[in-house]
Amino acid sequence: MEQVMIILCVLFTLAFFASAVLKRFGIPGLIGEILVGIFVANLVIGDWSLLEFLHIERPIPGVSDGNENWDMIEMIAELGVVFLLFIVGMETKVKDLTSVGRTAVLVAVLGVIIPFVAGYALIMAWDGNIYHAMFMGAAMVATSVGITAQVIKDMGVMNKTESRIIIGAAVIDDIIGLIVLAVVAGIAATGSVDYVDLTEMTVIAVMFVVLMILFCAKAVPEIASRVIRSCENRKTKDPGWRSNIDIFAVAIIVCLLLSALASQMRLAMIVGAFLAGMIFADYAHDAGLTKKMGSLTAFFLPFFFVYVGLHVDLSAFTTSLLLLATIVIILAFVTKYVGCGLGVILGSKKTTSPKIVGIGMIPRGEVGIIVATIGIGIIVSGEPAMTNDLFAVVVLMSVVTTLAAPFLLSSVFRKKYGDRTKDGLQDE
Amino acid sequence: MEQVMIILCVLFTLAFFASAVLKRFGIPGLIGEILVGIFVANLVIGDWSLLEFLHIERPIPGVSDGNENWDMIEMIAELGVVFLLFIVGMETKVKDLTSVGRTAVLVAVLGVIIPFVAGYALIMAWDGNIYHAMFMGAAMVATSVGITAQVIKDMGVMNKTESRIIIGAAVIDDIIGLIVLAVVAGIAATGSVDYVDLTEMTVIAVMFVVLMILFCAKAVPEIASRVIRSCENRKTKDPGWRSNIDIFAVAIIVCLLLSALASQMRLAMIVGAFLAGMIFADYAHDAGLTKKMGSLTAFFLPFFFVYVGLHVDLSAFTTSLLLLATIVIILAFVTKYVGCGLGVILGSKKTTSPKIVGIGMIPRGEVGIIVATIGIGIIVSGEPAMTNDLFAVVVLMSVVTTLAAPFLLSSVFRKKYGDRTKDGLQDE
Repeated sequence: MEQVMIILCVLFTLAFFASAVLKRFGIPGLIGEILVGIFVANLVIGDWSLLEFLHIERPIPGVSDGNENWDMIEMIAELGVVFLLFIVGMETKVKDLTSVGRTAVLVAVLGVIIPFVAGYALIMAWDGNIYHAMFMGAAMVATSVGITAQVIKDMGVMNKTESRIIIGAAVIDDIIGLIVLAVVAGIAATGSVDYVDLTEMTVIAVMFVVLMILFCAKAVPEIASRVIRSCENRKTKDPGWRSNIDIFAVAIIVCLLLSALASQMRLAMIVGAFLAGMIFADYAHDAGLTKKMGSLTAFFLPFFFVYVGLHVDLSAFTTSLLLLATIVIILAFVTKYVGCGLGVILGSKKTTSPKIVGIGMIPRGEVGIIVATIGIGIIVSGEPAMTNDLFAVVVLMSVVTTLAAPFLLSSVFRKKYGDRTKDGLQDE
Repeated sequence: MEQVMIILCVLFTLAFFASAVLKRFGIPGLIGEILVGIFVANLVIGDWSLLEFLHIERPIPGVSDGNENWDMIEMIAELGVVFLLFIVGMETKVKDLTSVGRTAVLVAVLGVIIPFVAGYALIMAWDGNIYHAMFMGAAMVATSVGITAQVIKDMGVMNKTESRIIIGAAVIDDIIGLIVLAVVAGIAATGSVDYVDLTEMTVIAVMFVVLMILFCAKAVPEIASRVIRSCENRKTKDPGWRSNIDIFAVAIIVCLLLSALASQMRLAMIVGAFLAGMIFADYAHDAGLTKKMGSLTAFFLPFFFVYVGLHVDLSAFTTSLLLLATIVIILAFVTKYVGCGLGVILGSKKTTSPKIVGIGMIPRGEVGIIVATIGIGIIVSGEPAMTNDLFAVVVLMSVVTTLAAPFLLSSVFRKKYGDRTKDGLQDE
């Protein structure tokens, strides 16, 4: 427990200073936090390594799990991004999503197909192993909306069409990603796809999302106003700060519950958290929920970005692997950008910027890393379906896309909506 | 990670409802949270146990550690009580403590001696083992101020003389408890006390507390106003919610840092957190820190009270052990109450209530359990210095004192200061 306290203190402090310094230069703070993770993970002076000093052991896929300190960081990191997406959900009304529905589907679908095909083709050309190729394709599909969400929140552009398309597409992307991963893992593990299981899983995932959205649109206005009313009645009777947080506690419960549920359906927890947030969209501001969740997130979230950076092991890279990584990274940028941008051009009116959406969908975050980890866990004729070398490439690709995207994104947003976006223009 | 999410969701939800129900009947909500812990830990239906169902394994001292889910709960629980004491610190000014200094010392000293002697004598009469007797004495010494702090905050009586005496005495109590434990553990482990080590440890602990208090009184007004000013300047330049939390982030860093430091000096982390809070006492309200820390604590703290309850294993009790436990519990109540009450009578003016202080010092919380765990870890001539039976007794004593105290405390506070204490009378 002492050790955990020291780790939390060191990581939070470094993240705070890195983020503060970068913000001074107009660079999104989370980049500093990811860099702190990379720094902590790779600082070795002679025999001394900072990671060992802090008693953090990373998992080595196929070899060992992370130690309990790694698990602690992971938990806090995951809670951080869950709370972040809950806040994003609270600022998203159902009609914001449905109004961009068609575009979001197009963006998601094209943003899955093009990166998958590119990743698959590249690795087939590289080592000719079909399993490696499939998993690389799947790893390039995943979009991690946490980073984009953070930038959108920081810049106060949540109400712009592009932001809504990105959020909607990210939810759909997660469902398609789930299907792609199931197909790929099925082929690698058993040589075939279990279509019954696949259909069941897809139907459940789609139904979960659709039912939740319907629930938000139809049932919530009724239920939530009753809950809030009864909470407020109780509040006036019973003084003290702990009794004032009832609605907040309900929000936390719903957030944890839907995140756990989403995870049970093999969806990302953040999809559940986002839908949970949408339940409170009409009431969050009046109930003071946004501020309270913001305080909670301020503690947890830096650990998420540090955690993303912690995955990078620079010592794994040989020259030829670095070459492959460079190609993969370029493809990861270009294919998502083109795929999602094309979706906007085909699906939305001319005033919507395909650039913003394309860039917003680029970061892979931890999702790509999870896909690659699953690949290493599957053994095909005596060998894992993903090599440790390719795993290192996927990690670097995930982190570099995650690092670069906020930088690019804030610049394109600023170009379209002016420098002080928050108090600036209305959405067209 | 899925599993952790489910555990967090179940525990938080149960704690929320239990606390809400009890509050309706005017009973402090944290009692409900502790009861939830006991309920979750002991619900067995045939072969099915709720604890196993949730994949939580408690540590069995001397046999096995808790599993990683237990560690997660422990971490969140510890952070909860750390943040709580930070908030209590934020509402304590240095002069509040120094004005009750003499009384607090008397309360702490008498509140240590009388319970220790009683616990020691009882076990000497029970099984005649001097090590068992010493550790039982030490376990009865420890006061856990978390519970009392929660009640004081709930009732809004932080500014009353009794509250200040309790908080001050709890800090001193922790230092004396540290010394007692070091002496007892030294005698059990090596047959003698290392006076050099003991003196060093005591001096460091006392110096840490005294220097921190001096620091708060002399240096902080200067430093803090500069830090806050520079943060506020930055805020106006850079919009967005994450850049608005700078002071909050600094507070979190200081809180984690001093908690870790206190822990390095073998003091309780909450003593460090309390001192950290005092640094911000003059600025907390203006900087919005109290509210933000409150939101953070609202998530973490319920897990602390549930965690206290989770330690209780009702299946360990035979009839004779239950008899011993009953005697120990009665002694735990009476000796702290008499010892600390006596301290108030000897040290403070007549208007100060010895009842309130005596009751406020009763809860042993997790501190008694930690002492007993250390006892089990020390082997004296082939046997642990504490038996598993006596460990179960200590756990029950800790939890029962913790359960009963808020109930009694809120009633004596109400009797003295009226029903709606928060908006009611001024301190005399």
